[in-house]
Amino acid sequence: MKKISVGIVGASGYSGEELVRLLLTHPHAELTAVTSRQYAGQTLAQVFPKFANHPHAKTLRFVEPNAAVLAKQAQVVFLALPHGVAAEFAIPLLQQGCQVIDLSADFRLKSAAVYKDFYAHDHPAPDLLATSVYGLPEVYRSAIKNATLIASPGCYPTSVLLPVLPLLRAGLVKSTGIIADSLSGVSGAGRKAELDYLFVECNESVRPYGVPKHRHLSEIEQELSIAAGTPVIIQFTPHLVPVNRGILTTIYLTPEKHFANADEAAALNQRILACYQAAYGNEPFVRLLEGKALPDTKNVVGTNVIEIAWRLDPRTGRLIVMSAEDNIVKGASGQAVQSLNILCGFPETAGLI
Amino acid sequence: MKKISVGIVGASGYSGEELVRLLLTHPHAELTAVTSRQYAGQTLAQVFPKFANHPHAKTLRFVEPNAAVLAKQAQVVFLALPHGVAAEFAIPLLQQGCQVIDLSADFRLKSAAVYKDFYAHDHPAPDLLATSVYGLPEVYRSAIKNATLIASPGCYPTSVLLPVLPLLRAGLVKSTGIIADSLSGVSGAGRKAELDYLFVECNESVRPYGVPKHRHLSEIEQELSIAAGTPVIIQFTPHLVPVNRGILTTIYLTPEKHFANADEAAALNQRILACYQAAYGNEPFVRLLEGKALPDTKNVVGTNVIEIAWRLDPRTGRLIVMSAEDNIVKGASGQAVQSLNILCGFPETAGLI
Amino acid sequence: MKKISVGIVGASGYSGEELVRLLLTHPHAELTAVTSRQYAGQTLAQVFPKFANHPHAKTLRFVEPNAAVLAKQAQVVFLALPHGVAAEFAIPLLQQGCQVIDLSADFRLKSAAVYKDFYAHDHPAPDLLATSVYGLPEVYRSAIKNATLIASPGCYPTSVLLPVLPLLRAGLVKSTGIIADSLSGVSGAGRKAELDYLFVECNESVRPYGVPKHRHLSEIEQELSIAAGTPVIIQFTPHLVPVNRGILTTIYLTPEKHFANADEAAALNQRILACYQAAYGNEPFVRLLEGKALPDTKNVVGTNVIEIAWRLDPRTGRLIVMSAEDNIVKGASGQAVQSLNILCGFPETAGLI
Amino acid sequence: MKKISVGIVGASGYSGEELVRLLLTHPHAELTAVTSRQYAGQTLAQVFPKFANHPHAKTLRFVEPNAAVLAKQAQVVFLALPHGVAAEFAIPLLQQGCQVIDLSADFRLKSAAVYKDFYAHDHPAPDLLATSVYGLPEVYRSAIKNATLIASPGCYPTSVLLPVLPLLRAGLVKSTGIIADSLSGVSGAGRKAELDYLFVECNESVRPYGVPKHRHLSEIEQELSIAAGTPVIIQFTPHLVPVNRGILTTIYLTPEKHFANADEAAALNQRILACYQAAYGNEPFVRLLEGKALPDTKNVVGTNVIEIAWRLDPRTGRLIVMSAEDNIVKGASGQAVQSLNILCGFPETAGLI
Repeated sequence: MKKISVGIVGASGYSGEELVRLLLTHPHAELTAVTSRQYAGQTLAQVFPKFANHPHAKTLRFVEPNAAVLAKQAQVVFLALPHGVAAEFAIPLLQQGCQVIDLSADFRLKSAAVYKDFYAHDHPAPDLLATSVYGLPEVYRSAIKNATLIASPGCYPTSVLLPVLPLLRAGLVKSTGIIADSLSGVSGAGRKAELDYLFVECNESVRPYGVPKHRHLSEIEQELSIAAGTPVIIQFTPHLVPVNRGILTTIYLTPEKHFANADEAAALNQRILACYQAAYGNEPFVRLLEGKALPDTKNVVGTNVIEIAWRLDPRTGRLIVMSAEDNIVKGASGQAVQSLNILCGFPETAGLI
Repeated sequence: MKKISVGIVGASGYSGEELVRLLLTHPHAELTAVTSRQYAGQTLAQVFPKFANHPHAKTLRFVEPNAAVLAKQAQVVFLALPHGVAAEFAIPLLQQGCQVIDLSADFRLKSAAVYKDFYAHDHPAPDLLATSVYGLPEVYRSAIKNATLIASPGCYPTSVLLPVLPLLRAGLVKSTGIIADSLSGVSGAGRKAELDYLFVECNESVRPYGVPKHRHLSEIEQELSIAAGTPVIIQFTPHLVPVNRGILTTIYLTPEKHFANADEAAALNQRILACYQAAYGNEPFVRLLEGKALPDTKNVVGTNVIEIAWRLDPRTGRLIVMSAEDNIVKGASGQAVQSLNILCGFPETAGLI
Repeated sequence: MKKISVGIVGASGYSGEELVRLLLTHPHAELTAVTSRQYAGQTLAQVFPKFANHPHAKTLRFVEPNAAVLAKQAQVVFLALPHGVAAEFAIPLLQQGCQVIDLSADFRLKSAAVYKDFYAHDHPAPDLLATSVYGLPEVYRSAIKNATLIASPGCYPTSVLLPVLPLLRAGLVKSTGIIADSLSGVSGAGRKAELDYLFVECNESVRPYGVPKHRHLSEIEQELSIAAGTPVIIQFTPHLVPVNRGILTTIYLTPEKHFANADEAAALNQRILACYQAAYGNEPFVRLLEGKALPDTKNVVGTNVIEIAWRLDPRTGRLIVMSAEDNIVKGASGQAVQSLNILCGFPETAGLI
Repeated sequence: MKKISVGIVGASGYSGEELVRLLLTHPHAELTAVTSRQYAGQTLAQVFPKFANHPHAKTLRFVEPNAAVLAKQAQVVFLALPHGVAAEFAIPLLQQGCQVIDLSADFRLKSAAVYKDFYAHDHPAPDLLATSVYGLPEVYRSAIKNATLIASPGCYPTSVLLPVLPLLRAGLVKSTGIIADSLSGVSGAGRKAELDYLFVECNESVRPYGVPKHRHLSEIEQELSIAAGTPVIIQFTPHLVPVNRGILTTIYLTPEKHFANADEAAALNQRILACYQAAYGNEPFVRLLEGKALPDTKNVVGTNVIEIAWRLDPRTGRLIVMSAEDNIVKGASGQAVQSLNILCGFPETAGLI
């Protein structure tokens, strides 16, 4: 299979670094361009010593981002940039024929008004919203295959959507009263020199933030609404915990069907299991935990896998669904490479196992 | 003020160690006896090098637990033992005239049937349940003053009850549909040599456990029901996060009064603030966070303080209340010493600031 | 005892914060002024939520640093500033009659030339070097008592000097070939928003730095040379390890007296023990570990204690001495308060136990 | 290339787990047997959820260790067992024609007397010592190729030997006075349910242990002596630091050639660089750090790479060499797979990049 040329704009953050890791060893992609204002002129090996043993890392140098140059070097370009900035790069790249996989929030929302409500500035390229595809492979695989602009999902949204979407689509749970409580590792804050993310400020600290209106709510609710066929509003509370990587999300749902005793719970549990197996039984990156196991971020860190488990509580009538993922892999760069594989017709697990 | 003699049964666990720390430097208490089967014969200084500079630590030796001997050495005895075992010590100590502050779950529940439901064995001393006082000073201060047997609350329950009780009592929130999502440091699992709590198994790991029916639900629901004047069933999900100490609890509540816009939210917020100030404005160990601050375990670790903040979410109509405490101090040993102070007529903050 | 008024210049870093903690609860000192360019106008409670329960914390506000104003508010002023900057504040404060306890490196060296060699700029106040006292209480207690300018030792130097000085003074070890290998928690880097000290960059990372000529060598060698009566040059390698606080130092020494077997080692060990007991047997903040115990930072964090243990190795003929301290307490702010106590005639442990 | 069948005895510890990880995805090996007394009967997927997405993990079950059965299932058998126990398995496996790669200390030493001195029991199979090959590929590659019994090196020894051996062989440094100071992650202690390795006991703790005679000294000194052509005795101090994985070793050496100024240091530095480049310039798993970079465990964790950097100190006349490796990969299981590759004629990096 001929290798496809890929580039990364903004390759020095945590998502960018992970894209570098995945693409350097990808069997069907060749990393031909990496940009970084801060590190322009340095080789990959200099900026990321951990990749220095890869032969390519000693020769590939970071360059200043330039869409015209990039378009000649790479057929597919990943954007690992802050929201707002990403759109500005996407426009010229698309015009020059590149396919773009954007890891920012810029093209995830269908509505420019919702974007403005949550991101507090006008959308920089509203015309593109209609053509972008939400890059959640387990849901939009066929659209991704034909996309030119893929909006790779956020880390928190992935951890909420994959567990909830099948249940909503199957009508197994109510679309109202949903609560998602998430715990994220510190890499989720990005590689930013801010006091709040110093080691001493995060170690031995557990804290909520962004309560009650975190930006990721916008894309979570958009996708839940599509699945439910009705507008969905949820509660979402992120917390920062002292791990490098990983998101653990606990979701509180109400089954459509009331269950009043152990027998009814067992029957409902079978329906939920069947629903999940139908949705994910053949998915290479979704691990349904049966038996007594519960998700643990340490079982997924460094992989593109999301773990999902659930429990029915006869005392409260609720369904509790829990997921664990690596926020930088399945929650960001791994998922983006999964989309690349679909887009280019590679095996979907190429470079990801 | 004459010093009171105190003893600790089971002084080698994390709660026991913290009791030692607090009582060694307590201005009005003298630690006269510490028991430990494992360390009998060794001095405090040998078992806990960190206390070795205290003169008492070089002479006070751990002894095998013996109620008759203890009763002669200590007027007040703290029990830092597993549930089930604690009750067996409480009985003879009480018979011999000691006052007992029990840190286990044995005397927290009023109903032996509920105890059996949650702890899976018959209650070892059901007759004592009627006389024991739930040792939450901010709620039961006057009863603690006259108690002979104090059941010091669990770590999770403290983090849920202090934020929720005033709201329920004031009728500001519904007693139904309450969800509490808690994150605990690893010391909460106790000093037990089990694989699950090894450094490598906990570091870089975030995981839920005990879903959906954790034992602490029993005392949480008992106390919420008393405050609400009606039986309360809640959802509670504990998670293990890699810090030594600290519990962060996020609680989802529904206000009785619907709020549909910013003005109504602001008005309701004033009522909540007034409710909390009435309940805790003069409490030395409850810190109400106003302004933008949210609870962070690093601000309370090592102290007997619980931080409480709250947010109204006009999008969902919910009230989110968050608390942070040190699970070993306000969640265990510090709170028990607070009860000692009340019981003995000492200033309530003695030895705790 | 009448309280003495104290101020802190640069109170928002980690050393400054710890000074605040210690001085807010000091029985004989009253914190009357705290300065911070960044936080001027805010109360202690706003900047450090963890101190918010102290009544003083809600009223005392950070102010812009101004020596003339400070001199009226505080009899003793602590400087928790970067080197170079500290000297500029010390001069006017001393001129206006304050006593100054400087936590920077500015007044630790007797030689302005050595200062320039290690700190790469001219000394800002060379005239003061002759009058400043090196604030290591276990060594310079009587000089501290009469000082007007105390240069509180660095964190690494404290961890090296206290273990080595008595051995050198007693002629038990050679003054040549000394190696000190230190591991420091991340708070040692200060509260600076730099990428290198982000949580993700430090967690799961162990790394040396400043090899081979760390600035602290200058004061270590100055004090070792005084004790040895001859110029001493040592090897010193600091490492960064992922803990908030604590320094563990392992020092390799060669005994003057050769020991060739277990008996000779035992005899030499007795002399070393006697030497340490003579030096530190009555010191409240030095803990000599006998028996099998080795130093562990977790036993000293949060305290002003340094732990010291040693082993003779008959295989190599070396003496290995190990120490553990809290870099922010005994290595900085606690030691500075210990000097305050000596300076003012308070009990030396006041506010430190 | 036909796949070779491999088995792992003792596959449930940390080294065993890492062998499973590496061998499940190895392009030329097929994992046909895993043993564990504790987990016999369970699948790999059940014991190690993180591997559950590998198809093999759902079918391969742990079995009780049985050499006769193993010898039929696997051509090459890895022993990830405690010392003493490993030898008992090696004997029958070798007799039945297997090739054995032992990760324990049982076959690393050439002298049964030294083994007894350091391991405190008679060697269980002294006859095999003459035939075993010390599995350090960068040194014994050709012997490994023809071995039947490979003794894979210890984690600490690898971190000391690779940096020091070339210098000793080239006569660039003295064979006397060597000091190695190592910092290890907690996985080095193994998956053992002991209080000392609980999260709470290791987190926020830094401590030396095994001072002054750690068992790994025996193999370090054996190999240094071979390289030096004369008996070498060194000082070695291990420390435990709170990371899951990684060893950082700092080694103090004395160059044979004195250097008195910057020019002489630069000339000597060139010789050292040339020596290292000759030894490791083509090694895929040794990364020589030139320029300003120093080793950092976070750059090697999860890889089979060892980073090496060095500094000459004109003040002391010493050479300081620093290395970083993953104690479980290059220090254990990765290195063992590297030996497998050599033994079987696979590309040496197969399954390791």
